[in-house]
Amino acid sequence: MGQDNDKNIRRSQPGFNWQGVERMPYKEEGLAPFKAISRQILFADPALQCELRYFEMAADGYSTLERHEHAHAVTILRGAGHCLIGATVQQVKQFDLVNIPAWTWHQFRATKGMPLGFLCMVNAQRDKPQLPSEQDLATMRADPHLAAFFKGTPTE
Amino acid sequence: MGQDNDKNIRRSQPGFNWQGVERMPYKEEGLAPFKAISRQILFADPALQCELRYFEMAADGYSTLERHEHAHAVTILRGAGHCLIGATVQQVKQFDLVNIPAWTWHQFRATKGMPLGFLCMVNAQRDKPQLPSEQDLATMRADPHLAAFFKGTPTE
Repeated sequence: MGQDNDKNIRRSQPGFNWQGVERMPYKEEGLAPFKAISRQILFADPALQCELRYFEMAADGYSTLERHEHAHAVTILRGAGHCLIGATVQQVKQFDLVNIPAWTWHQFRATKGMPLGFLCMVNAQRDKPQLPSEQDLATMRADPHLAAFFKGTPTE
Repeated sequence: MGQDNDKNIRRSQPGFNWQGVERMPYKEEGLAPFKAISRQILFADPALQCELRYFEMAADGYSTLERHEHAHAVTILRGAGHCLIGATVQQVKQFDLVNIPAWTWHQFRATKGMPLGFLCMVNAQRDKPQLPSEQDLATMRADPHLAAFFKGTPTE
């Protein structure tokens, strides 16, 4: 009954796409550094106070290194890679859960020769991300683990 | 660095379990009809206005038939089955997206001889579910598609 015309179900399609969901650029080009990453808004319903988005980076792609007041609740959905959270770099794989607390530098990288895709739950009303200053970057790069992560060759 | 001791990452474990996440009963026994279903709270952070839960029913299990003011945003994570939304019954499979609008009767069933597991995003502050009256049930059972669904043998 109405399998294809019920607006309440959007079918999963091959390659982590969904019926009626547009695969969009991650951000506007030139505003912040990122590479080979797309954005799909899965749920943005005025009845819900959070949104659920799916971000996916191709092998060697990465998200913007940034921080903000709002928190992220991340569920890895596809593949594997690494993430930087604050002063730590860790491997992540399918279905791992990642908390990004307020005002914590974070970045995801597809370092495993495969795509890295994740769901990200976030408050619908939220502040804009902050980018690192040159001084912030210098401080982070002084840590050899973080420096290796930024080069795409994490040490773990 | 700190892969096992970083509180911001909770590792996926075999069988759709997670490090530090308890697999709990779905509801208190006797309050409402349900069968062979568990509940895991993946994210319930005061910094986020929604929660993300993982519900899983074993083959032939089902959630409670209920409705409420709050909406659900569901992402199927494991297996396949059927769901009733309002007056429709539809198949669902891994990664399908399901909207449950306000005040809409809904129930999930693992009708495919396999588990059915899904993520459910929901406002942290929400009303309690309402159960169907005998009259509501009689009305629904008068529809042969819904009647077959309730018997665990959906017609599609």
